[in-house]
Amino acid sequence: MKAEIIAVGTELLLGDIVNTNAQYLSKQLSSLGIEMYHQSVVGDNAQRLYDVMAEAFSRSDIVITSGGLGPTADDLTKETGCKYFNKKLVEDKKAVDMLKDFFERLGREMTENNLKQAMVPEGCVVLYNDNGTAPGILIDDSGKILVMLPGPPKELIPMFEKYVRPYLEKKQEYILVSRVLRVSRLGESMTEYKLRDIIDSQTNPTIATYVKNIEVIVKITAKAKTRDEAERLIDPVAKEVYARLGDNVYAEGDTTINSVVCEELIKRNITVAVSESCTGGMVSSAFTDIPGISKIFIEGAVTYSNGAKMRRLEVSDKTLEKYGAVSEQTAVEMAKGIAESSGADIGISTTGIAGPGGGSSEKPVGLVYVGICVKGKAWAKEFHFTGNREKIRTRAVDAVFDMLRREIAKLD
Amino acid sequence: MKAEIIAVGTELLLGDIVNTNAQYLSKQLSSLGIEMYHQSVVGDNAQRLYDVMAEAFSRSDIVITSGGLGPTADDLTKETGCKYFNKKLVEDKKAVDMLKDFFERLGREMTENNLKQAMVPEGCVVLYNDNGTAPGILIDDSGKILVMLPGPPKELIPMFEKYVRPYLEKKQEYILVSRVLRVSRLGESMTEYKLRDIIDSQTNPTIATYVKNIEVIVKITAKAKTRDEAERLIDPVAKEVYARLGDNVYAEGDTTINSVVCEELIKRNITVAVSESCTGGMVSSAFTDIPGISKIFIEGAVTYSNGAKMRRLEVSDKTLEKYGAVSEQTAVEMAKGIAESSGADIGISTTGIAGPGGGSSEKPVGLVYVGICVKGKAWAKEFHFTGNREKIRTRAVDAVFDMLRREIAKLD
Repeated sequence: MKAEIIAVGTELLLGDIVNTNAQYLSKQLSSLGIEMYHQSVVGDNAQRLYDVMAEAFSRSDIVITSGGLGPTADDLTKETGCKYFNKKLVEDKKAVDMLKDFFERLGREMTENNLKQAMVPEGCVVLYNDNGTAPGILIDDSGKILVMLPGPPKELIPMFEKYVRPYLEKKQEYILVSRVLRVSRLGESMTEYKLRDIIDSQTNPTIATYVKNIEVIVKITAKAKTRDEAERLIDPVAKEVYARLGDNVYAEGDTTINSVVCEELIKRNITVAVSESCTGGMVSSAFTDIPGISKIFIEGAVTYSNGAKMRRLEVSDKTLEKYGAVSEQTAVEMAKGIAESSGADIGISTTGIAGPGGGSSEKPVGLVYVGICVKGKAWAKEFHFTGNREKIRTRAVDAVFDMLRREIAKLD
Repeated sequence: MKAEIIAVGTELLLGDIVNTNAQYLSKQLSSLGIEMYHQSVVGDNAQRLYDVMAEAFSRSDIVITSGGLGPTADDLTKETGCKYFNKKLVEDKKAVDMLKDFFERLGREMTENNLKQAMVPEGCVVLYNDNGTAPGILIDDSGKILVMLPGPPKELIPMFEKYVRPYLEKKQEYILVSRVLRVSRLGESMTEYKLRDIIDSQTNPTIATYVKNIEVIVKITAKAKTRDEAERLIDPVAKEVYARLGDNVYAEGDTTINSVVCEELIKRNITVAVSESCTGGMVSSAFTDIPGISKIFIEGAVTYSNGAKMRRLEVSDKTLEKYGAVSEQTAVEMAKGIAESSGADIGISTTGIAGPGGGSSEKPVGLVYVGICVKGKAWAKEFHFTGNREKIRTRAVDAVFDMLRREIAKLD
């Protein structure tokens, strides 16, 4: 099967937003083994959208649109899809109820134009929206499939995963199954170097490496008639990758190092407290992102100023004076201070220079110390990160979780 | 003049990279007053690229491509452009010299296939590449302009700015100028509802609304011969939008509510301390995202557990027992507690149920209290947010900054 993507929205043509939906959908279709040769962007204009849609269907079996399903007058995608398939719009009772519910929960008045979103093409599959107001639509008619999804990625992605992916999977003869190995603290070129010969020699499964945020992903993809057959093709290759990358592989599948570490802490009932300077709340925020974390996350202290470091964590003024706030010694005292005052099993600290200002030749922007205190014993590790303020802070958070991961492993 | 963008590259169709070039070029063309109704993505395939290019020229005067100019066999954009304009490729002496220079500076040997990049269509404008190996090409022939740019943004952007923008500016009689008003805590449909009649009746300037993250953007765009003239057209319309949306408009231009609030706090030297439960560090992290914030951000306390709320913030056990951790009373005591213990001018607190678990009929998922303590006087506001855990937490952070914004305004 061949598919095309049409992103609808004048804001894309004006460059107000970047088309991340196209990337997401491309990846999904590619993993389903569905071919794609064209993508388009078109504004909120019925005639032009119709022409682009008709042309896409002249080349492809599946057309997926994003955007243009909202309540306003320039949201025209559904009407255009109806015109192409010669279908009427009818009111969907459940969609009306969900809309009313949505506004009620928000405590906001629902303006009349919102009801437009509950009108759906007759005989379509309604893709109810758990994360917004506009339901998506799937029309499967005479060998052509039109999937219309809302524009906001937070609505589009869960809707694709819940309804569209399973629907398309059933239509495919061969499926592509991927196993993802997640690699922490080993660069992409080093990962590739270690796997070069098997990347080059493999055809089914294939092996690809890519960078995602700050980690490296090794993706092993097999083509087969069934998931079992694909998994059997993948097994020996995955084993070889593990043998070469060692404990840098921290997990498989769709997860994050933060989730993996937190799950392990929860499972083993190891409590944690955090004191942050340069990451300023990001480490605590990463912990509290995980549902159920209250079982082991005792507290966080964002001690940005020296005063707060002394008052909250009992970092000594001598240490701050002699070594400075960004130092191994301060990181150690911070980790110890938060562990002791909170009574947590593990205390963690970060202190560093995130920039853009504040760096010196001795202590350049990007210098970060991560401290850890386990069972009363505290130590710290020095890191040098590159990039802007955001990147340096994000990398410091990643370093915290990688250090935690390795420390927990030692606790066995 | 009308333009279209064609991004060339199989990696875009596979979702390996996101098409940021399209956004950049869209913005540039829009600010030049050049209209755009279509964008496409096509893989590294000569026939399909030719078809897409021919169709683009059937609708538009200008076609800008990105990608496919490199040294490898699947780089076909230049050859396709030549075919469309019926031109031969000839060697460009300066391009050859620059290529040799480039590799010499890198200390690498130049392989023969690189010379392919110095072949240019006869009679074209060569856009020499200061940041990579492949020169860009501009063909202006019989009323059609084809601009072919390299794919990497680091090469494409400076090339566009140095050659293409000035070239197109000379061709344009009118320019477009936009003014952006940022709206906080008023949904898109409500914003549009309040502006409906002027959106409908305006032609120059035009008014458009769209959602960006959790705020609404109102964009007023005027077409004129000069920037001054455009601004004069925009002024009365902007004034009317302000009159209708009131203090929900929090800023103009390219900024965020977090930056606006933090800049104001820094300017007026108002110190802040934060205590967080449901947002778990995100509010502190949003503050410390801003360079220079250490001047006014005293500290943050992530008091996730009741124990931490009592120990760190002196929330009374009676309050927790009688009203619960998620209550107006607890929010008030948290805000007061952090303000007092830190000595900050303003204390802020969040407590709520971010889900997915932990909700009840009395206190459903999405219930959040934001507390604020200004000069010893503390109060809290109740919110009901929808969405998943991440969305609820993000909206709570947004609510914090919106409350702060309104409180600071009152301090005058």
